[in-house]
Amino acid sequence: ELGGFTEEIDNVKSEYVHSFEFDSKLMPYTWIVVRLDGCHFHRFSEIHEFVKPNDERALNLMSSCAMAVLEEFRQDIVFAYGVSDEYSFILKRTTDLYQRRASKIISAIVSFFTSTYVIRWKDYFSNRMLKYPPSFDGRAVCYPSTEILRDYLSWRQVDCHINNQYNTCFWKLVASGKSKREAQQSLKGAQLQAKIEELAIDYNKLPIMFRQGSSVFWDRVDNVLIHPENGKSSECYGKVIVEHIDIIGSAFWLEHPGILDEKQ
Amino acid sequence: ELGGFTEEIDNVKSEYVHSFEFDSKLMPYTWIVVRLDGCHFHRFSEIHEFVKPNDERALNLMSSCAMAVLEEFRQDIVFAYGVSDEYSFILKRTTDLYQRRASKIISAIVSFFTSTYVIRWKDYFSNRMLKYPPSFDGRAVCYPSTEILRDYLSWRQVDCHINNQYNTCFWKLVASGKSKREAQQSLKGAQLQAKIEELAIDYNKLPIMFRQGSSVFWDRVDNVLIHPENGKSSECYGKVIVEHIDIIGSAFWLEHPGILDEKQ
Amino acid sequence: ELGGFTEEIDNVKSEYVHSFEFDSKLMPYTWIVVRLDGCHFHRFSEIHEFVKPNDERALNLMSSCAMAVLEEFRQDIVFAYGVSDEYSFILKRTTDLYQRRASKIISAIVSFFTSTYVIRWKDYFSNRMLKYPPSFDGRAVCYPSTEILRDYLSWRQVDCHINNQYNTCFWKLVASGKSKREAQQSLKGAQLQAKIEELAIDYNKLPIMFRQGSSVFWDRVDNVLIHPENGKSSECYGKVIVEHIDIIGSAFWLEHPGILDEKQ
Amino acid sequence: ELGGFTEEIDNVKSEYVHSFEFDSKLMPYTWIVVRLDGCHFHRFSEIHEFVKPNDERALNLMSSCAMAVLEEFRQDIVFAYGVSDEYSFILKRTTDLYQRRASKIISAIVSFFTSTYVIRWKDYFSNRMLKYPPSFDGRAVCYPSTEILRDYLSWRQVDCHINNQYNTCFWKLVASGKSKREAQQSLKGAQLQAKIEELAIDYNKLPIMFRQGSSVFWDRVDNVLIHPENGKSSECYGKVIVEHIDIIGSAFWLEHPGILDEKQ
Repeated sequence: ELGGFTEEIDNVKSEYVHSFEFDSKLMPYTWIVVRLDGCHFHRFSEIHEFVKPNDERALNLMSSCAMAVLEEFRQDIVFAYGVSDEYSFILKRTTDLYQRRASKIISAIVSFFTSTYVIRWKDYFSNRMLKYPPSFDGRAVCYPSTEILRDYLSWRQVDCHINNQYNTCFWKLVASGKSKREAQQSLKGAQLQAKIEELAIDYNKLPIMFRQGSSVFWDRVDNVLIHPENGKSSECYGKVIVEHIDIIGSAFWLEHPGILDEKQ
Repeated sequence: ELGGFTEEIDNVKSEYVHSFEFDSKLMPYTWIVVRLDGCHFHRFSEIHEFVKPNDERALNLMSSCAMAVLEEFRQDIVFAYGVSDEYSFILKRTTDLYQRRASKIISAIVSFFTSTYVIRWKDYFSNRMLKYPPSFDGRAVCYPSTEILRDYLSWRQVDCHINNQYNTCFWKLVASGKSKREAQQSLKGAQLQAKIEELAIDYNKLPIMFRQGSSVFWDRVDNVLIHPENGKSSECYGKVIVEHIDIIGSAFWLEHPGILDEKQ
Repeated sequence: ELGGFTEEIDNVKSEYVHSFEFDSKLMPYTWIVVRLDGCHFHRFSEIHEFVKPNDERALNLMSSCAMAVLEEFRQDIVFAYGVSDEYSFILKRTTDLYQRRASKIISAIVSFFTSTYVIRWKDYFSNRMLKYPPSFDGRAVCYPSTEILRDYLSWRQVDCHINNQYNTCFWKLVASGKSKREAQQSLKGAQLQAKIEELAIDYNKLPIMFRQGSSVFWDRVDNVLIHPENGKSSECYGKVIVEHIDIIGSAFWLEHPGILDEKQ
Repeated sequence: ELGGFTEEIDNVKSEYVHSFEFDSKLMPYTWIVVRLDGCHFHRFSEIHEFVKPNDERALNLMSSCAMAVLEEFRQDIVFAYGVSDEYSFILKRTTDLYQRRASKIISAIVSFFTSTYVIRWKDYFSNRMLKYPPSFDGRAVCYPSTEILRDYLSWRQVDCHINNQYNTCFWKLVASGKSKREAQQSLKGAQLQAKIEELAIDYNKLPIMFRQGSSVFWDRVDNVLIHPENGKSSECYGKVIVEHIDIIGSAFWLEHPGILDEKQ
């Protein structure tokens, strides 16, 4: 009797059990967006004493992880956009990562991001230990055209803008002595732009990262290095960079035609 | 011009963009299994010099993370079974975690597991640094009856058994001087039980964790403590434990009727 | 140049085109319910002058089609319940019809039902021509346990009961000279049982088909005929019958244990 | 006790039962193709003595039904292509028919087609009664770009061409005295074009409907009639026509830019 098992071991029918598995696949030739969000980061940011309304260290840690994701999935992910505790990753139309199985794509990206977040935490919060394991959840959405994908990215950047306006006002009110409830009440239904002027916030002087979020992409190099000996090219990807720029208008995309190139 | 945006900001139509989102939900009143697996752990285990065929530290780290998952998702996860670099989590039939949205359930569990894995790494590999971020992928499967769920768990434990027999033989052959290729060749299509005897492996003396995998569950306490003052019960969950036992036969389940209780 | 085609014929890549096909499969070992409904039957019933609130010919035609469906899909469909212009078909848990592909199952059943409806129309409406093609739409739902499947059937029969009470009152009011709008107004939020008494409707004298809908199933024969020569059994299915009975209580199901037998 | 029900009627919980329903929706802004196929039409065509390899009456009946479908779903279906016992219907990118619910779209189209098929049967087979109810099954596929949609249509027309070449050879061989098995054997792996010449078939003289299938679409009228009194336009749809033309090359699509107009 090997292993100490019951005799029923031969009756176990794996094929039958397998038949319950299903793999929902993401439609071919559509842009895949994987968006991850911090789980309960409201609490996480309080316990780890993030600066409000924006903590530069926390934002830079997020972007650092996003950069690692682009390097890890360099064949498949062409762009990422992040704000607050969320990050969206754009997989190219033609990707066949995990045969486009939704669960594997989402979980592998979220897991790698999380792992990097914990490892690099001390690089950004050198004087503060992680008090419990941070985690993120994720989802995937497909877009059938580049135009709609750009609408998605614009939507996220508009959201960044509006949330930042709101949060800047909110914390200014709290700093001025109001309770959180009073601050909330005072902003309910308010015209944010008017409120910013009223509170004498010099909005355009705020760091651009707070106002426009972070865009992560490959800075492609033109001069591909060719190994003199074996003729192989190296460094053809260039390096991953993060910029804080307007991705709603066309200018950025015209300057970087390779990012959303449909034929890549 | 606030924030430095193009004027197009008002044209961004979030509702339209939202319409592409879909949330595949897992069928109500079915058992949900979330199984995670290490990504490229063959390489990870080599680079971090795991003992072959089984590294106790690595297995205990995995189980430690699984225990943390049960504590974190105590309302929803009732059992976990792990072997090698995989772990299966059983959510109770009646769970409404994230409204049973597959992506969120999978990603949140995998992310929390990953986060814990990195944080606790040094507790199990005190003398070895993580050389790069480990990651896991996950998937969900639903089972419509408790009987089939038990078939699933039996299948995993049989798999543990067969893989362990194979790996034990393989590494014994390698230890005896054969190359990996020769060892593989020698085991191709072989009757593993006969091979074990031939190689003079005292299989039943191997640690039971290697032979039967790890089962993680709540050790429910019978004597619920009642606060004398407010009448509230505390500690009603008991504590999470890990055992290495036969989960194919009925004995374990009869002794722990609460775990797969359909009405919970 | 064969066929008169452009030369591009060789460039057509069927494999790529195929990759967009997806077959959502219904979870194994769950009860499948296919429910069909008449499309725009409000208009259809007016144009074909159905008697209100219930047209016996129309109901019998529906049941006749359902019986034909049970005969056609005798390996897979074990029960059907119908009311008004809808019919629900129950496929047995273990069915592998079309490998449980949702689209094929739904469309094939709905199409066969429709075809039979048109063909048999004249048997029930001998003096009235079909003025345009009637059509039905369909959907599938899976239930993981027999208990929940019975809840589904109970829900449909309760719906039959409530709708019939309402419609009986409504048309009585119209018959008494009220306009449809007035009748509707008078029933808005009304206690139907009280209304029935108020309108002096002898509800329990109404044909039981109107009050309880139609249940269609195989009347299994006990004495299977054995061919004396080849030993093969014939007529083992018995014949399909329609009954108007209570399917909410247990009595019917206890008398016909074979219908929802999980092991069949 | 109204209706003769058990008292359990109040315990029926419809909300819970509802929660098992799921509506898989077809991705917005993709082209939807609904393709239907005859169920067991090999047998159906034999029993109803269809002329081989092509029965003009049967093909014209199919196209007649497709035309009726385009008229019925005039807001949503812009093109159809048929061959043998199959027909593909193209719904425009922007359609919101049944909120893009797959089951309803497929079943409603297949049901209407079936209904029309039975009703119009006698117009094409005046001397032959329907011996049993014909039925069709259906499926839906989405295509994210017009280019891929055209690849789909090209694939169907290539299939038509190849099948027709094969069937023409097959039935010529049978007509020449071979058994069906011998004919099949003789064509196995054969170069069809060479075989056609060998059998002295004047392929290009065959009716173009057999060689190129049937395309059904709206012949849009340019001069929209304006009612002199109320200013409303009528007949803006023109009429549905069927043509037998090359849809692989660009010529047809350039001549009819409105059919696959993305903005419609």
